[in-house]
Amino acid sequence: MAKEITPRSENYSQWYNDIVVKADLAEQSAVRGCMVIKPYGYAIWEKMQSILDKAFKETGVQNAYFPLFIPKSFFSKEAEHVAGFAKECAVVTHHRLMNNPDGKGVVVDPDAKLEEELIVRPTSETIIWSVYKNWIKSWRDLPILCNQWCNVVRWEMRTRPFLRTAEFLWQEGHTAHATSEEAYAEAERMVNVYAKFAREVMALPVVVGHKSPGERFAGALDTLTIEAMMQDGKALQAGTSHFLGQNFAKSFDVQFTNKEGKLDYVWASSWGVSTRLMGALIMAHGDDNGLVLPPALAPIQVVMVPIYKSEEEHQAVLDKMYALKKALEAKGHSVEVDDRDTLRPGFKFAEWELKGVPVRLAMGPRDIQNGTVEVCRRDTLEKISEPLEGLEDRIIDLLDDIQKSIYAKALAFRDASIRKVDSWDEFKEEIEKGGFLLCHWDGTAETEAKIQEETKATIRCIPVDSAVCLEEGKCVYSGKPSHQRVLFARSY
Amino acid sequence: MAKEITPRSENYSQWYNDIVVKADLAEQSAVRGCMVIKPYGYAIWEKMQSILDKAFKETGVQNAYFPLFIPKSFFSKEAEHVAGFAKECAVVTHHRLMNNPDGKGVVVDPDAKLEEELIVRPTSETIIWSVYKNWIKSWRDLPILCNQWCNVVRWEMRTRPFLRTAEFLWQEGHTAHATSEEAYAEAERMVNVYAKFAREVMALPVVVGHKSPGERFAGALDTLTIEAMMQDGKALQAGTSHFLGQNFAKSFDVQFTNKEGKLDYVWASSWGVSTRLMGALIMAHGDDNGLVLPPALAPIQVVMVPIYKSEEEHQAVLDKMYALKKALEAKGHSVEVDDRDTLRPGFKFAEWELKGVPVRLAMGPRDIQNGTVEVCRRDTLEKISEPLEGLEDRIIDLLDDIQKSIYAKALAFRDASIRKVDSWDEFKEEIEKGGFLLCHWDGTAETEAKIQEETKATIRCIPVDSAVCLEEGKCVYSGKPSHQRVLFARSY
Repeated sequence: MAKEITPRSENYSQWYNDIVVKADLAEQSAVRGCMVIKPYGYAIWEKMQSILDKAFKETGVQNAYFPLFIPKSFFSKEAEHVAGFAKECAVVTHHRLMNNPDGKGVVVDPDAKLEEELIVRPTSETIIWSVYKNWIKSWRDLPILCNQWCNVVRWEMRTRPFLRTAEFLWQEGHTAHATSEEAYAEAERMVNVYAKFAREVMALPVVVGHKSPGERFAGALDTLTIEAMMQDGKALQAGTSHFLGQNFAKSFDVQFTNKEGKLDYVWASSWGVSTRLMGALIMAHGDDNGLVLPPALAPIQVVMVPIYKSEEEHQAVLDKMYALKKALEAKGHSVEVDDRDTLRPGFKFAEWELKGVPVRLAMGPRDIQNGTVEVCRRDTLEKISEPLEGLEDRIIDLLDDIQKSIYAKALAFRDASIRKVDSWDEFKEEIEKGGFLLCHWDGTAETEAKIQEETKATIRCIPVDSAVCLEEGKCVYSGKPSHQRVLFARSY
Repeated sequence: MAKEITPRSENYSQWYNDIVVKADLAEQSAVRGCMVIKPYGYAIWEKMQSILDKAFKETGVQNAYFPLFIPKSFFSKEAEHVAGFAKECAVVTHHRLMNNPDGKGVVVDPDAKLEEELIVRPTSETIIWSVYKNWIKSWRDLPILCNQWCNVVRWEMRTRPFLRTAEFLWQEGHTAHATSEEAYAEAERMVNVYAKFAREVMALPVVVGHKSPGERFAGALDTLTIEAMMQDGKALQAGTSHFLGQNFAKSFDVQFTNKEGKLDYVWASSWGVSTRLMGALIMAHGDDNGLVLPPALAPIQVVMVPIYKSEEEHQAVLDKMYALKKALEAKGHSVEVDDRDTLRPGFKFAEWELKGVPVRLAMGPRDIQNGTVEVCRRDTLEKISEPLEGLEDRIIDLLDDIQKSIYAKALAFRDASIRKVDSWDEFKEEIEKGGFLLCHWDGTAETEAKIQEETKATIRCIPVDSAVCLEEGKCVYSGKPSHQRVLFARSY
């Protein structure tokens, strides 16, 4: 009856792909690795955008827009940066097509070769710092707090919808400051904005921490991250915020006169989240019936399905439904009455479950008689019969409860997944079970690489919560002394 | 004192460029023809987006996102379309850079050549119709009403900020329908959404009309347009809406089963407005002191400048200002108190005039004594002293009045610019004076081309308002019979 979804236990990866496609979130396009975000998926992304945008602006950030293209020479000014991105970028080499002289169609016009190739931005530090050079002369011009919502391209070899695509949508904040402390504080402020958004809006209990040097953004002195745990035991990096030091200012010669009248290089942060958050949302909360959306992000929070035989019954039910819809909408909730006459109620139920709508109401002639309605919550699939009287307020409470319950469930799952592991044998055994392993690490890149090589696990982060990680011990791999535990996991 | 702006009478084009740069709207980037939209300019664009987006959604349109890249072969499936766009497009040919084997920097990796080149979208009909093919099987799947907000690239040879840039931001709506009538009605509906937005929000008295066949969008059967008149007498096409017939459905083989059970090709419309609207806004309303913003689009609607000598006076003024700011913000207005202590009031006045803030309040110790405030409206530069008592409501009325006055002024200017011209000698003389010439045209592409060749004037539109144009007469150029007048102008 409903569109079939592969159970998670059978094939988690296929379950994910099924939900993406069958809940109408996105689909592959004819262009390698580029997806089409369908209206239902895009509506969720728009809600994310609007809530994040407001949170950014509350901290004083302004939106702006910088070019899609980056001259190849800019791209290579910061050595680590180019090393990090050069191998997977789309390169524009020509600016014209011409009729094929040998036959049908069009070909690239060889006379329209660009003097300098342009890179489609994989991230915009280089082009933005070339612009900031013109904006910054004195400490009075600082700080600059700009964000842009845009598309970026990274030519990934293996792509998956939302999680890893050649083109994706994101926001990238780029800030410029007079001191190291201010730039660092900005990077911290923004990772906390992300963490709050993840927890309160996405119902995603993320761990905030630092990346190890080996996992840092190319060009950063420190990368802060929010890491989430998916239901299959793999971690997912959901957002990052970088302290860039003076690296980009030096590469683009951006100096300012400080309050003491001396020239100094400008300090920087950058931070971003992307449509990858959609992947996290699906994998953290979905079940074998489909998507489970936290009410704060659901494009439709309440769906109502009328049940009737006669046209008279139909009208009586619709009258009640539209009255309730109006009352809920007046309080800012999004409601849909599914009055399609070509589909049976059972089909509709399954479809709205698949799409993750938090609350479903069904009402038939008997309900009208009894003054009741059937209320089904998506997260637990519980159904109860509720009196119509005063229903509006109880639905609003229910939405609130669902938001909290989804978070609580994910939090319990995450916490149960975190285990302290102190021996290498145990590590190898435990990593197979998934989840976060909280282990001592000797702080060297060699050990980190060896662990990844042998187990595919990486350091997801060094948690900022010192109660969790600050402790003396011995490296789980090398046995060398360690001052703190870090979080290992396999990851998306 | 203020940043100097070239007067319009001296050099209109330079005046425009001065405002763009000095009002902090945008600037050229290092990438040919690509601009940086600065925070103040972007804030205006965001207001446009948010109001338009709401208007689209009210008609049932949903947002979605389609790939940035279009395979070359798709691009050439619609013959007129490729002819219209092939000569000015950015072509991605490679997906990797490598270290330069001959020395410094990076070069394109010749081994990473794409099998098929990708075009950076100049518009998305082709990629979207290749997707719609999968979405449409039966009349039940129709209509599809999708819009996307995105960037597009057209490799223009001569660029000007906002008016004509290689990369620009826009929205493009793409709709699919079961009948020709529905698709045409959609194209009409959306040009009317644009016209309403232009008039009520941008204070831009546009003329709605059809493009002549020669000026149609490449691949359209009919193009509807909103045409605005700029202060230098040149017209500006501010938005277009196309009836595409079945052209793209045929090129991408998109058929559906209609209610009679027969296969038919799907009917289409597409429609878009872009950051070009920013250019129209500047040129329609700006004056020699800078930008003049309609309150509906002003990121800051009211600015307050405190005037004081002692710190006591300063505080007394600020107290009044912040109280008023709070009251205005509670009613949804955006207010800034400019309390920068490094700048003199006169400098601030000039800066906010340059930035087009609709209402400026200044308050000093004498105002506190008298219970007054100096109110200056940007559109007329009138200053009056107003009692503080009840000021909040009067400012709200004033903002409303400014919105209407700016429109009325632009409307009077436009109407004065429209002249009926009936002889070729008069045409050649009058076109030099600028404005719209309402003339008979014999309906042939030959005459249209000749007129453009001899005078640089083009047919801006055939107005939909039949009272304006339906009239028998003789073509102003060929003397052949004509059934209607059309609007000629030189244009941006």
